Amino acid sequence: MPVLLDPARAPILSELLRAVPGGLVQSVVPGSGNHTDPRIAGLGSLAHASELEISFIVHPKYLDHLARTRACTVIVLPEIEEKLSQAVPPPSFARVICKHPYLLYARIAQWFEWARRPAYEPSIHPTAIVDPTAQIDPSALIGPHVVIGARCIVGAMTQIGAGCYLGDDVEIGASSVLYPRVSIYYGVKVGDRAILHSGVVLGADGFGFAPDPTLSKGAWGKIPQLGVVLVGHDVEIGANSTIDRGALDNTIVSDGVKIDNHVMIGHNCQIGTHTAIAACVGIAGSTIIGSRCTIGGMAGISGHLVIGDDVHISGGTGVIASIDTPGRYTGVYPFAEHKEWQRNAAVITQLSTLRKRVRALERE
Amino acid sequence: MPVLLDPARAPILSELLRAVPGGLVQSVVPGSGNHTDPRIAGLGSLAHASELEISFIVHPKYLDHLARTRACTVIVLPEIEEKLSQAVPPPSFARVICKHPYLLYARIAQWFEWARRPAYEPSIHPTAIVDPTAQIDPSALIGPHVVIGARCIVGAMTQIGAGCYLGDDVEIGASSVLYPRVSIYYGVKVGDRAILHSGVVLGADGFGFAPDPTLSKGAWGKIPQLGVVLVGHDVEIGANSTIDRGALDNTIVSDGVKIDNHVMIGHNCQIGTHTAIAACVGIAGSTIIGSRCTIGGMAGISGHLVIGDDVHISGGTGVIASIDTPGRYTGVYPFAEHKEWQRNAAVITQLSTLRKRVRALERE
Amino acid sequence: MPVLLDPARAPILSELLRAVPGGLVQSVVPGSGNHTDPRIAGLGSLAHASELEISFIVHPKYLDHLARTRACTVIVLPEIEEKLSQAVPPPSFARVICKHPYLLYARIAQWFEWARRPAYEPSIHPTAIVDPTAQIDPSALIGPHVVIGARCIVGAMTQIGAGCYLGDDVEIGASSVLYPRVSIYYGVKVGDRAILHSGVVLGADGFGFAPDPTLSKGAWGKIPQLGVVLVGHDVEIGANSTIDRGALDNTIVSDGVKIDNHVMIGHNCQIGTHTAIAACVGIAGSTIIGSRCTIGGMAGISGHLVIGDDVHISGGTGVIASIDTPGRYTGVYPFAEHKEWQRNAAVITQLSTLRKRVRALERE
Repeated sequence: MPVLLDPARAPILSELLRAVPGGLVQSVVPGSGNHTDPRIAGLGSLAHASELEISFIVHPKYLDHLARTRACTVIVLPEIEEKLSQAVPPPSFARVICKHPYLLYARIAQWFEWARRPAYEPSIHPTAIVDPTAQIDPSALIGPHVVIGARCIVGAMTQIGAGCYLGDDVEIGASSVLYPRVSIYYGVKVGDRAILHSGVVLGADGFGFAPDPTLSKGAWGKIPQLGVVLVGHDVEIGANSTIDRGALDNTIVSDGVKIDNHVMIGHNCQIGTHTAIAACVGIAGSTIIGSRCTIGGMAGISGHLVIGDDVHISGGTGVIASIDTPGRYTGVYPFAEHKEWQRNAAVITQLSTLRKRVRALERE
Repeated sequence: MPVLLDPARAPILSELLRAVPGGLVQSVVPGSGNHTDPRIAGLGSLAHASELEISFIVHPKYLDHLARTRACTVIVLPEIEEKLSQAVPPPSFARVICKHPYLLYARIAQWFEWARRPAYEPSIHPTAIVDPTAQIDPSALIGPHVVIGARCIVGAMTQIGAGCYLGDDVEIGASSVLYPRVSIYYGVKVGDRAILHSGVVLGADGFGFAPDPTLSKGAWGKIPQLGVVLVGHDVEIGANSTIDRGALDNTIVSDGVKIDNHVMIGHNCQIGTHTAIAACVGIAGSTIIGSRCTIGGMAGISGHLVIGDDVHISGGTGVIASIDTPGRYTGVYPFAEHKEWQRNAAVITQLSTLRKRVRALERE
Repeated sequence: MPVLLDPARAPILSELLRAVPGGLVQSVVPGSGNHTDPRIAGLGSLAHASELEISFIVHPKYLDHLARTRACTVIVLPEIEEKLSQAVPPPSFARVICKHPYLLYARIAQWFEWARRPAYEPSIHPTAIVDPTAQIDPSALIGPHVVIGARCIVGAMTQIGAGCYLGDDVEIGASSVLYPRVSIYYGVKVGDRAILHSGVVLGADGFGFAPDPTLSKGAWGKIPQLGVVLVGHDVEIGANSTIDRGALDNTIVSDGVKIDNHVMIGHNCQIGTHTAIAACVGIAGSTIIGSRCTIGGMAGISGHLVIGDDVHISGGTGVIASIDTPGRYTGVYPFAEHKEWQRNAAVITQLSTLRKRVRALERE
């Protein structure tokens, strides 16, 4: 639906596919009429694409949408093309046959995303406050009202959006994007190709206090947080997420980790490569999570746990023990109409008694 | 308790009621002594109002507080006035009789809120960076360190607080207020009379990734988020809430929607008119929510669901299936003293066995 | 692991212990070799400390780590020293004997934290916008792009980080630190020695609306939030947390309260002294929480409740009723492998029926 390019500037299909990397395309079947090698001005969902757009189908359950689409071109699985090739009359749209249509869609969207972006001129905005000891790559873009502390390093082609703050000794790799108003405390390191969205805070103090009986009853003494946060390459962190600095050791986010909005990662945590963490997840301090895990939205993970590789936590689940076996884990209270919930929830608080009563019956 | 106006500037009751719109007032009963048409300098709760303040009572269960209030005037329901009018001695406070005392209180509070506000002079602060192609209404107020991108439109009487960021092609309607440090990504549109609190992020990328087997094992390829966020009129969004831009289509927040703090709305969601969403709610991508719904704090709603009109979700509930019938829905684990919880929770993991045992007993 | 000081500048152990306040040290046992009164350049965990660092052991279960530590000095409990003093050969590290090793570690970390900090020169950055009626103590540090409104008061030795916003009539006490990009709405007061992390928002509007039947069906009328937020002394508030202003009365956070990241405290709440609130907790409006409580991460507390002193809420618990007895309270759905969860969760919705069936069997 968002037509992205002026049709005059838009590529024709064969050009577009040549420009997209990866060798994902198996073959192309021309459409009928003016859809033999159509001009592609953008991408759209099957339901909303216009005649200037390419769409995709990832599952046969969307064949109904496919039948009605206006898209000039559709990316299809080989097994769907098999059906389409026998349709009478044949579909008017061109087909790009591909075993990974979702991935090819992603790549084409990336192409349009870059084509759409305004030309980018390296510069340091005159309102930015950059410490003279900071090393800013000449190809970087530093936005207005940015503050960059002593001895920071900002890599090639990296963009620091308006109002971002980098404390002393922060390092950001190459080709990274910090959207406006990201705050990074002193000493934090971020790798290449990072994407940090607005409101992200990296390196704030972990939540560490020692009961201090020498002060008033119940008072807490602050434990300074002397570690930092180390973020690998190819990491994306969503809006308003926070990752705290370590207490003594560091908090570590490995290469390829993807983090959604409103995620909280406590001090000393370690997140393994390619793990994906959906929105509103909280991970308490010192927990270690393996590689290729997925953590559903609003899941909560207690501190000092070890979660192995390839573990998948369902949204809303509270994980209060370590998990060493790959698989999917869930713990969500089933929702119901309120009165029904009340009836059943009332029994929850008597479950142990209920079990005893069943045992007693069994013994009779 | 917060006396708002210098008593010398404060209105007398009859003036105040004339100034408040809506025809909500049924009648006014003068109080005794100097409370026949008292001067009203502010509002207070029954328990804390001073003699210069107006208060209100919405339910007979607060009659005790009413008996002890120092307020010079109280907004009351007709049925409460019936009792008051027969009291011996009569109450000293004036009564404003009204079928919707809570709403009248809201309107009077609005009057004081505006009376209290410092005079507002349209201007663009010299430290603001405004693209020359942006159209800023001359009656708007642009605060210090604001950044406004190319082709933005800011409507009449709209206030953009300190440090806000508006990407290219953002539109904000008339009479809207952006508190300091709101971030709005390119292309997002917001209607009239919006209130966006500090830390709000609109239009950050949705969480969209395609597994990319051509890279390393488990790697994710980014799916650019090409849609925007469209926010209707009369929408309020609380501090640090985030609404992500659509992947291909747009994320839509309809007229009159009220959103509390720390709310996360995923890409492609649609929220119907007048739906109210309490704090810390997460709504995963592509979910459609109807009109006039209420969603309690910390509820989580899975992606790709359809929730109909007039559905009320209790706080803390995880909604993992669509709901088409209006009503109230709940799914919260009952809390208890920890040891009791342990005893009962241990049975949860054997419930299906327990049911089998009951069946077996029934067959005997 | 993070060696903090140039060894040439680092204190020797006896100097360090003299510099740390509190009389916590019972006695010191010199180590062997060059560890009789070693130079201490930093702190480290037993597992990662270098020979220039001091470490600590809080529990005998870490004796294995102690046996392998490279730390030159270890803080130990008297009962652990008893064992160490009889070891053959004796440990090479020096021991600081102390009944509260965790607290002594905290104090030593505080010493290093301050030693590490760059020298701080009071100043108001030229890009800061400070209203002429504001009173900034001459010993305060006001960072770049800060905005300070009319009649604000900023106390002695207080640091306001880059991009912070203080609305009119805000007061911040002495020796407080606001990290970059904190937003404080008008009228909010914060005490001495506060630490507010990036993205904190204090005093945004509470979520208050009255149904307005005079507008369209389902519409909400805004209730202005006329109270403020009052924050006591020695309060720390984590990154991106929000505390809303009161509707008529004030929201109150008492002395010594510690709040982690992503916490939301609704309007009119009162939090008692020394209560600690972990990350991602939501507390709905008008709830009163006592002193010395701890609230685990992701717990949610409904509105208008009263929680007494010394109540401990486990992480993830939804509290939907008042609690007047001290103790620990929990309500978390036990997680399990997904298929097992499905089997058991299916019974949840029939629990009340199951109980009836058990009753029927009992009557037989």
